[in-house]
Order: sequence, then structure tokens, then C-alpha cells
Amino acid sequence: MARMKAAIFVDKNRIVLDEKPIPDVGPLDALVRITTTTICGTDVHILRGEYPVAKGLTVGHEPVGVIEKLGAQVQGFSEGQRVIAGAITPSGHSNACLCGCASQDGPGTRHGFKATGGWKFGNIIDGCQAEYVLVPDAMVNLSPIPDGLSDEQVLMCPDIMSTGFSGAERGGVKIGDAVVVFALGPIGLCAVAGARLMGATTIIGVDSIAPRMAVARQLGATHVVDFKQGDVVEQIMALTDGRGVDVAIEALGTQATFESALRVLRPGGTLSSLGVYASDLRIPLDGFAAGLGDYSIVTTLCPGGKERMRRLMQVVASGHVDLSPLVTHRFKLDDIEAAYELFAHQRDGVMKVAITP
Amino acid sequence: MARMKAAIFVDKNRIVLDEKPIPDVGPLDALVRITTTTICGTDVHILRGEYPVAKGLTVGHEPVGVIEKLGAQVQGFSEGQRVIAGAITPSGHSNACLCGCASQDGPGTRHGFKATGGWKFGNIIDGCQAEYVLVPDAMVNLSPIPDGLSDEQVLMCPDIMSTGFSGAERGGVKIGDAVVVFALGPIGLCAVAGARLMGATTIIGVDSIAPRMAVARQLGATHVVDFKQGDVVEQIMALTDGRGVDVAIEALGTQATFESALRVLRPGGTLSSLGVYASDLRIPLDGFAAGLGDYSIVTTLCPGGKERMRRLMQVVASGHVDLSPLVTHRFKLDDIEAAYELFAHQRDGVMKVAITP
Amino acid sequence: MARMKAAIFVDKNRIVLDEKPIPDVGPLDALVRITTTTICGTDVHILRGEYPVAKGLTVGHEPVGVIEKLGAQVQGFSEGQRVIAGAITPSGHSNACLCGCASQDGPGTRHGFKATGGWKFGNIIDGCQAEYVLVPDAMVNLSPIPDGLSDEQVLMCPDIMSTGFSGAERGGVKIGDAVVVFALGPIGLCAVAGARLMGATTIIGVDSIAPRMAVARQLGATHVVDFKQGDVVEQIMALTDGRGVDVAIEALGTQATFESALRVLRPGGTLSSLGVYASDLRIPLDGFAAGLGDYSIVTTLCPGGKERMRRLMQVVASGHVDLSPLVTHRFKLDDIEAAYELFAHQRDGVMKVAITP
Amino acid sequence: MARMKAAIFVDKNRIVLDEKPIPDVGPLDALVRITTTTICGTDVHILRGEYPVAKGLTVGHEPVGVIEKLGAQVQGFSEGQRVIAGAITPSGHSNACLCGCASQDGPGTRHGFKATGGWKFGNIIDGCQAEYVLVPDAMVNLSPIPDGLSDEQVLMCPDIMSTGFSGAERGGVKIGDAVVVFALGPIGLCAVAGARLMGATTIIGVDSIAPRMAVARQLGATHVVDFKQGDVVEQIMALTDGRGVDVAIEALGTQATFESALRVLRPGGTLSSLGVYASDLRIPLDGFAAGLGDYSIVTTLCPGGKERMRRLMQVVASGHVDLSPLVTHRFKLDDIEAAYELFAHQRDGVMKVAITP
Repeated sequence: MARMKAAIFVDKNRIVLDEKPIPDVGPLDALVRITTTTICGTDVHILRGEYPVAKGLTVGHEPVGVIEKLGAQVQGFSEGQRVIAGAITPSGHSNACLCGCASQDGPGTRHGFKATGGWKFGNIIDGCQAEYVLVPDAMVNLSPIPDGLSDEQVLMCPDIMSTGFSGAERGGVKIGDAVVVFALGPIGLCAVAGARLMGATTIIGVDSIAPRMAVARQLGATHVVDFKQGDVVEQIMALTDGRGVDVAIEALGTQATFESALRVLRPGGTLSSLGVYASDLRIPLDGFAAGLGDYSIVTTLCPGGKERMRRLMQVVASGHVDLSPLVTHRFKLDDIEAAYELFAHQRDGVMKVAITP
Repeated sequence: MARMKAAIFVDKNRIVLDEKPIPDVGPLDALVRITTTTICGTDVHILRGEYPVAKGLTVGHEPVGVIEKLGAQVQGFSEGQRVIAGAITPSGHSNACLCGCASQDGPGTRHGFKATGGWKFGNIIDGCQAEYVLVPDAMVNLSPIPDGLSDEQVLMCPDIMSTGFSGAERGGVKIGDAVVVFALGPIGLCAVAGARLMGATTIIGVDSIAPRMAVARQLGATHVVDFKQGDVVEQIMALTDGRGVDVAIEALGTQATFESALRVLRPGGTLSSLGVYASDLRIPLDGFAAGLGDYSIVTTLCPGGKERMRRLMQVVASGHVDLSPLVTHRFKLDDIEAAYELFAHQRDGVMKVAITP
Repeated sequence: MARMKAAIFVDKNRIVLDEKPIPDVGPLDALVRITTTTICGTDVHILRGEYPVAKGLTVGHEPVGVIEKLGAQVQGFSEGQRVIAGAITPSGHSNACLCGCASQDGPGTRHGFKATGGWKFGNIIDGCQAEYVLVPDAMVNLSPIPDGLSDEQVLMCPDIMSTGFSGAERGGVKIGDAVVVFALGPIGLCAVAGARLMGATTIIGVDSIAPRMAVARQLGATHVVDFKQGDVVEQIMALTDGRGVDVAIEALGTQATFESALRVLRPGGTLSSLGVYASDLRIPLDGFAAGLGDYSIVTTLCPGGKERMRRLMQVVASGHVDLSPLVTHRFKLDDIEAAYELFAHQRDGVMKVAITP
Repeated sequence: MARMKAAIFVDKNRIVLDEKPIPDVGPLDALVRITTTTICGTDVHILRGEYPVAKGLTVGHEPVGVIEKLGAQVQGFSEGQRVIAGAITPSGHSNACLCGCASQDGPGTRHGFKATGGWKFGNIIDGCQAEYVLVPDAMVNLSPIPDGLSDEQVLMCPDIMSTGFSGAERGGVKIGDAVVVFALGPIGLCAVAGARLMGATTIIGVDSIAPRMAVARQLGATHVVDFKQGDVVEQIMALTDGRGVDVAIEALGTQATFESALRVLRPGGTLSSLGVYASDLRIPLDGFAAGLGDYSIVTTLCPGGKERMRRLMQVVASGHVDLSPLVTHRFKLDDIEAAYELFAHQRDGVMKVAITP
């Protein structure tokens, strides 16, 4: 049985490169040879044991590659085709999928819903920080890369762009809106780009790391706020002339950012939350008009599926959004442990790394 | 200057019937002679000093009456016409009104938004527990009562129906949904009716007071759950066969009901909150899928304006919803202090009282 | 090879009962033994050669039955289970499915869209007026029948209810709306029920056949209009006091009904079209405010998929809608030619027939 | 009584500059001294007698100016303030306004709706091609010009931008959509900009006039199609690789453009119509999937009101859209007859003219 290299979660603080069999291809699967992938903040949570996965699992959920082999029932694709798949790989047939909630896909459950059930790669099945990955429900999830786009150009589509844009989409950003994005990591930066793409005219990025704030401006932020330079709520209210924002996007996952997001909303505004939280959240009574402010708080897990990926790659192809500044470092798969070392400690101004087998 | 009787907030725990001048009618106002009004739970919060209003203010925000006098600029109505006005009386010209958020109306503010600013009667201007009330922005707010409907039949429209129905509307109830309503006071009961009216097929009412649970069944609840008879989350999950609900409506304003509402949602579901909270709220991490469950939490202040009132009176006229069981007691305005005494202590199975000058 | 009886399109005006092999079950299919099915108006168009299908095709697209055999890859169902499938059987994996437009499913096409592509049974694959039917993409399309519901109770779910309700849903019916439904055949009657289920308070049914008008009243029509008793537009405008309707549902497919539907809309209203048209349509300039009336015209093909079917069966189970008056005649499959004879000529007050093998 | 100059409709083919009294200011009005205005295609229809207005009416509906005098009841503005008002001036208090359909405002009608009733300037009341204009319902309609923006920069906001953007908004343009705009006059060009602003990635402009096609590219068109260079439907289908567009915007008002817009839609797509039609329209059966294609056809009249104007001026201020290339010619009000002569005959490559008193 042929074998391949893969980054495997062995134990807390140990993700190592090792060998595994190249998986067999079931009737609905596709085997994809990875040409480029990356490391996500979530992978770091896995590394640190903060998010539990099975020992021995291959990590990674952002695949760019080439179709090596198609399952017997898979139609509409051909071997050798360059493709991506989303970080979230819905089945297409659960009740969640059929009611427009595919990220909460629960194909094996009684009612077809499972919280975060659409996230499979590197969570409940082997992921893509490897030479090969098996894509489930391939007809739902494989999306051909348009001619002329490089691996790195589409590397953000599977997760970072999809998640970040969804912050603006679920927030219902409209032409002329004021939007704030809390935390300018890769997802927050994509939320900035998404707000810009949907017609927001005041876009405020909040962070304290200068290079991130500079990239935010490139991606459409009209203002940046350094939360270390004074009360963040006051700064944002001043920038909006006391009005507050229509949509506040939370892209970190902490009480402080969540609470500030709520406090800067105009009455009737929407808090669109993308962060992964680690503890209970508190909604302050005075920032919530005691429940009478017509506020909305919405949360979103990265949308997946081939149509989503097609649209995101169209955005890249259009040139309307240029995420290339996000890829700051490049590693071979053989050196992925070093990549984790750098990325987990956020050394050297790293934003995203490109990993190539 | 002619005088009238009015229920006036004097001090904590003292709302008394006294006399006041009948107000002058400004160009955009209408003076309405009250024929029936009622007391709201919010009035009890005012009575107890839990919600601050100015001493000397006339309380009450649910007017049914007859147009006594129209302001010079008011067109489209005639004196002697039977009308209601919503508890919330938007101006029609603030930015909040013009972007579909009229309850957060801030006509005198810099940007046209003010949290809960649309609530004026018995809050920032004299209310309608009196012989007369001055309706501001009369062309926006007066709504003629259809022939054949009695005062009591439309008495719930200004607040209770509008608020309760909005719980279902903002929750986005769809045909075939499972919905739960936490707390079966007058607003919760109207939320049950609203969910039924929008096509929900499983409607679970939660309370522990048997007569309220019985009315819930009349208004469309397919199941009732007594939260004193075992864990409420477990009971609801059992009734939905482990699936959870599409929409959970909170109609009380406590941590316990808010938290249970969140815990019974299916992934991707919506918590539609109507309650007025008295302290900070906690979002439990495990009931929130750590922020990744595609949940929505929406809050709503009672929608007002004449078109809203027109539609609610159409519902009454259609006979699709019969709220007459809600009016359990009747008082003369002269006896309003006794009405407060009864209502504030929830004696004698009171749900709503009708007050007639 | 085992054989079964099936109603087969042989030629114009000839649908005959004949024998065919029971089909083989592919990996994603399910073979369902039909216990009850029905004839649709569309089948009559096929019979008359007005809608082209391949000679030799088994007709019928409304299956109720029992799972006889599951494909090797089908999970989550068991043989012997009672199920229905929608008239429209989306694949779950086309781009159309993944962007919420599953009836326009084009799994074999370059871009994943095909107009009416989701309609397969009795159109491009063998249908269900037979002893057995092969359900494609079974995990997307099989929906278990809740305990306690009879075949006839769920017989309208695959097409009639789904289509009729979608008229109200796509029209965006809201609480307090005035709605008119043009033509009270089975689909129009279900549109009446759908409008009622979504909160419309004025529901006008238009037809000239008294028994249909009577059933419309049972299903929620507040008024019925006989188009032979005077100008239909004038009658509807009179019933709405000159205001017009918020939503007009067209359920026949003719110029006359389409045009009247447009003419009775209030400015900003929606024409929701369900009819299958046979010729070009004309939009009259004066009924269209020259393009400036904020009107919407929406068309809908019957929504399918198991989640849709689940919800419709919930409606039946709730007792909120009782469609049993629609089944006016019953036939054995052996007598299906007689059933076509009766149904095609609309003899004996037929609305829907139940066919049992 | 002081007098002012005004462009007055005298008779078919005669709009002349003459004198009129400066109007009195009612309690809810504002008198605005016009500093810049423009001529719209609709004004040319009026000139030619194709759209009827009263003889003696001042024409024009795109005002930029300074508040000269405020009505007694008008609050929140100050004399001397630079403002615009929308071409459509809703009352804020009709039922149409209160249900989100303000352009169909019917404040004087029985039910509060009137088709195109929100269009008052130069239609049913004196317009703004004059030294002064009386703005009705000033609190709803006056919108202060942000510091730093010139008259010409905001001159497109009252009509052209609002209408053009609404084509994209009502079409529901989403990130990654393919959009086509038929006819690249000023409104079509703004529709291109609106589609770009909302995230469309393929934007096809259709016209045959080279300078307009060039401006379309500046405003975001990714492709332009010359309808004289071959079948327009074929060209668009080729540019979308046979898929068709998600949204087709009609910005001319002819059968040819309407029909082509329908024919290039993907199944489930939306035709968003902005044109003013002069005769009945035909929906071709084969371009409409016989009513089963899940198509939507939506029409929109220019949205107005101060919040809309505020948002559009925010777009200008953000620099995201630069409409300055549209103003090709400038005239004094004294020379407005010459301006009409040029504009009506579309001489000298005119797109929009700026008129300054």
C-alpha cells in the first residue's frame, strides 16, 4: 500500500510529520494530491490541546491540489484537474443542507443537524496537511480553479475568505453602511475586504499591530483604531460622529471584543460574530438597551461547498480583492513542524504560511 | 382651562388618579378621548421605581378612543372617528424610521436614532391612562378601528399583539417550524398566536400557571411544558424528538429563560427575545457552539405606526386570533389604583385589565 | 428479471398500462414500492402531447410508498420504511442546489443549472404511476411518513401542497396581508391554504365552479369571486375597498388570469405565478405603472427534497390544514386509464384521484 | 411678492424660462435656493408631451441648494445649510411609507398608496429647475451635504445614483454574481457602479456608444458588449461561458432590452427593471421556462428620503464611486432652453448637464 507524508496530531503540543497509507477512494470521494495548503489559527488550538481531535488524525482544512483519483460515482470532474475544496465539506443531503444551513450538516444524525458538523477535514476525518487528502462528497465539494490563478491566489478561499466575507454577509452590510471589524488577523482582514465588497463606506479596523493595520487599509479600511491608544468604544463613536456602526464584526473570540462590538452598534444594528470563544460570554445590560434595542447578534461558521468556492475564486479572478499580502512565509511540507513553530508563536510578522508538499 | 382625570406617577410605589389640564393640540397632534385602555407589565416596573420616569407624568401606552380634536396640519382623519394608536409612536421622519427601524426613532437626535426612542407615551410624554391623550405625529400614528370591532377587541393591538407577534416575525417563523415560547404572560400568549399565524406546526408554551397554559392551547400551542415538572430543556428536547426548535421566543426577561431558549435551539436556529432584562445576560459557551453554531439572537421593541395597527386589527377582524380570553378584569378609570393593586400583585388570575373612563 | 405494471406514455392521447422490468438499484438510488399515487394536470398535458416526453416513459411524479431496496451507498433509511419523495428530486450537489435554487438542478450540465431540471419523475426518468419507482439521490429525496398519517393524507405533499404553498411563500405573504388566488384547482386551493397558514387575513379565491369555491372557503378563503359574475378586477377591488391586494397568486397559466393578477395589485405588491403557460404573456402598460410601480413578478417550480417533504407532512400532522376534501375519486392502478379519462375531462367534479397498485 | 426664474412646461415641445412668485413656506416645508440642478431623461419625455404634466408647472426633480427658509414646524435643520433632496419626496406618514414602499406614497389617498405617488417635484408640484424650490415634508426629505463635497459631486444622488443603485439592490446582487446592465445612459452607468459596489465580479455593460462603454469600464464593468456587433444574447452567453447571469438590469425601457434581459438569466435569476416603458411588454414563453424557471422580475422607482440621500452622499465621500465623468456640460439657468436643446437631442456626447442659477 502506497504511503504518504502527513502532519499528524500526536498529543498536546505535538503535531509531527509522519507517514500514513494513501487512503482508499470510496464511491463518492475524490483523492486530491495537495499542491499547496496552509495552517489556520484553529490548527494551533488543536496543537495546544485546546480543541480536541483524535490522536493520529491528519490536521489541516485548506486544500489546494490536483484530482488524483475519482470515486466510481463521481461525475462532472476529471482526474488531473486543479481544484480546491472548502474547509467545511457539507454532504449535500442532510436536512441542514436542504434548509440552507450546510455548515451545521449532520448526515449521520437523526434529524440531519449537528452543530459544526460540516467541519470534517482535520477535525473528524483526516485533513490536508499531507501529500494527499480524501475529499468526501466530492460532487458537492470539489471546485475547479479558473485558468490563470495560482495556488497561492486561491489558498485563502477554503477558509479565511469564506469566513471573513460571511461576517459581512450575515451582518447584512448595505451600501453606505458603517462597519467595524474587531481584530485584524487573517479572518478580520477578509471581513474588512468583504465589507468593502458589499458597499460599506466607513470601515473601521481595530487592532494594535501596525503591519496588520496597514494591510487593513489596503483591503478597504477607511480608518484603523489602535485599541491600546485609548478607549476603543470612544474612538469608534468619535469616528462615526457619535452615531455608531450599522454592523460590528467580531473576529477574535473574546469577551472584550464581543462587548465592545455590542457597545458601538447604533440601535437596530447587527453584531456579526466570527470568533471561536473559549468561555461564557456576557451581554452587558446597558449596551443592550435592556433587550429593547432591536439588536441582532449572529454567528457564522465558514460556508463551504463548490458553489461558494466558485464565487470566492471569481472574486480573486476579478482582481477586486488582493489577498496576496496575507501570505508572508513559505515552507515545504517536510518543514511543517517549523511552520507550526513560527505560526503558533506569531513570529516574524507572520500572517499566513503557504505549505507545499 | 378644562381639566381631566389622569393616572400620574407621583413617586416610587405611588401612581394616583389626579387632575391635569387637557393638553393643547399642536399642529401635528391629535387629542384623543380615551374610551378604553389597559395596564402593562412595564407600568408596574414604573410603579415600583424600577424603570425611571419623571414625577408627574401620566402613565399608560395602550390607547383606544375617539378623536376629539385634530391639529391644524393633520389630514386624512376626522373628529369623532374611533381610533387606536400604537404604544410606540414613531415620528415618520427620523433616520431610524426611514431605514425600517422606527421603534428606535430619534427625531431630536443628531443622527436620528435613539435606543427605544419610539416609546413616548407614559415614558417621555403623558400617556393614556387618562380621559384624554395627545397623540404626537398623528398622521403616522392614528389608525381607524374597523366597523364592528369593540374597544376590547382591539385593546391588545397597541402593545401586546404587536410585541408578541413581532417575536415570531423577527424570529423568521416558517411553515413547518418548531417554536417554543418561554413564559405565557400576555406577550408570550400573543407570541404563541403569532407563531401559529405564521405557520409553525409544533408550538410549545412554557409556564407553570395552569390557566395561562390553557389559554396558550386555545391560541395555538400544540404542547405546554411546566418548567416546575422537570428540566425544561430536557422536556422540550423530548417533545421535538431531540431535534430542538427552529425559533425560541423569550417573553419574560430573565437569565433562566434566555439561557434555556438558547439551549433548545437546533443548530442554525434563532432566539427571538422580547423580554425586558434587569441585569447582564450570560451566553453559555456550550449552548452556543463556541460561536460556531450559526445561531441568531434578535431583540425587538414593539412595532408601532398606523399601518402596523391596521394589520393587527385586520387579524382581529378576520377572527383568526381571539384574544378576548386575555381580558380578565374591568375597572373604571376612577378605580385605577385598585386595578394597579390587583395587576401588580397578579391576583385573582389576572391577565389584562380593561380600564374605561 | 421481475416485471411490474406501469402507466406508459405511448403516443399522443395514449397513456396505457403495460409491463416493464422492475429497475435495477444504483448505489445512490432507492427502489420504492408504490402504495398510493395520483394524476397531476401536467400528466394530462403529457397525455395530450402538449408537453413532450419520450415514448415509453412511465408517467407520474407524486409517489407514496414503502422502501423496497436501498442502493449500496444510501444511509439513514431502512427497507420497509414508509416514505414519500417530492415531485422534484434535486441531486443535492449541483450549483443550483448549493445556491438555494434546487428545482433548477442541473447536475449533468456545465454550470450546474438547468431550467426545470429538478423535475425528473415522469419527465426525464420513469415516474411513479407504477408498482415501483426508482428514486434518484435517495438520501436527498426520501422522507419518512410520520406515524399515524395515512397514504392519502400525505398524497398532496409531493406536488400540490409544495407548489401551492410556494405561491404564498415566494409571494412573501405577511401577517395582515390581502391575497387573491386565481383559479381554485388543487394547486390554487393549496395556495389558499398556504396564504392562510402564513397569516393573510383577506384571502380571495377566484373561480366559477361552486364546489371548488366551497372547498376554498374550508381552506381559509375569506371571500370567493365568480369571474363569470362580472368584471373580476372590479370585484376584487371592491372587496379590498379599492386598495388592491398585497400578493396575487396565479394558479392556472393563462393571459387572462396573469393580467388580472397584475391589475389587482396595490403599488409595491407581488404577483406570484405558479401556472404553466402555453404562450407568450403580455404585461399591460397601464397595469404595470409603466415599470415604476415597485411591482414584483415571481415564478416558482414546486420545491422538493426531503426537508421540504418533512415540513409539509408536519403541516398535515398538525391538523392545521386538511386537504382530504381534494381526493374525490379512487382507482386501482389497473384502472388508471379510466382514471385518466375521468381526470382529463374533469368529469364528476373530480379534483384529485388516488391510485393504488 | 418676490419673483424667481423657473423652467416651465408651457406646451408640447415648449419648456421655457419664465418668472413665477417665490412660493410661500408652509409649516412642514422648506424653501431651498437652488445652487445646482440637472435635466433628466424624464424631463425630455415631459418636454415632448409623452408624459403629461400640468401646463405652467416648473419642471426638474434633482435639487442641490441651500436652505433659505424653514417651515414653522420643521426642526433639526438650519437656514443656510447646504442640502439635497431626493427626486422622490415621500411624506413619511402614508401606509406605503410605513410598510417600506415609500416611492408609492399616497398621503392623500384612502389607503395610503398611489402608484409613483412619491414623485412630486416637476410632476405634481413645482420642481427645481428654478431659483427656488419648495421641499415638502422637509424633515423627511432634506439631507445635509457633508463638508468637502461640491454641488456637482452630489448632483447625481437625488435620482441617477439612487435609481441606478436600486437596480442592483432590488436585484439582490451578491458577492461573486454575474450581472448585465442593458443601456449605459446615466442610470445604467450607475447600475454598473451599484453592481460593482455590491460585490458582482462579472459586470457586462451593453450599449453601442463608445464613450458610454468607456465610462462603464471606469465604473466597474468587466466587459462591454456592443449590441450592433452581433446577437446580444449570444454575446452575453459567450461571456458567461453559457451559464447566463444572476441579475440582469434593464435601464432603457424597451421590449428589446427587456426581452434580452430575460433571455440571458440563468434559471432562478432576477430581471431588475428600471426603464420607463411606453407600451405593453411581451414575456416570451421560451425565455421564461413556461413559468417554471424560478425567475423574478422586479421593478423599482427611485428611492428617496433623507436617509437614502445620506447614504448615497457617503458613497461619494468614500471615493468608492466617482461619477464626475457623467457631467459633460454646464449651463446657466438662463440658458436652460439651450441645455434642453442639447440634452433632448443627445448632442455632443452629452451625458448629464449641470445647471446653475
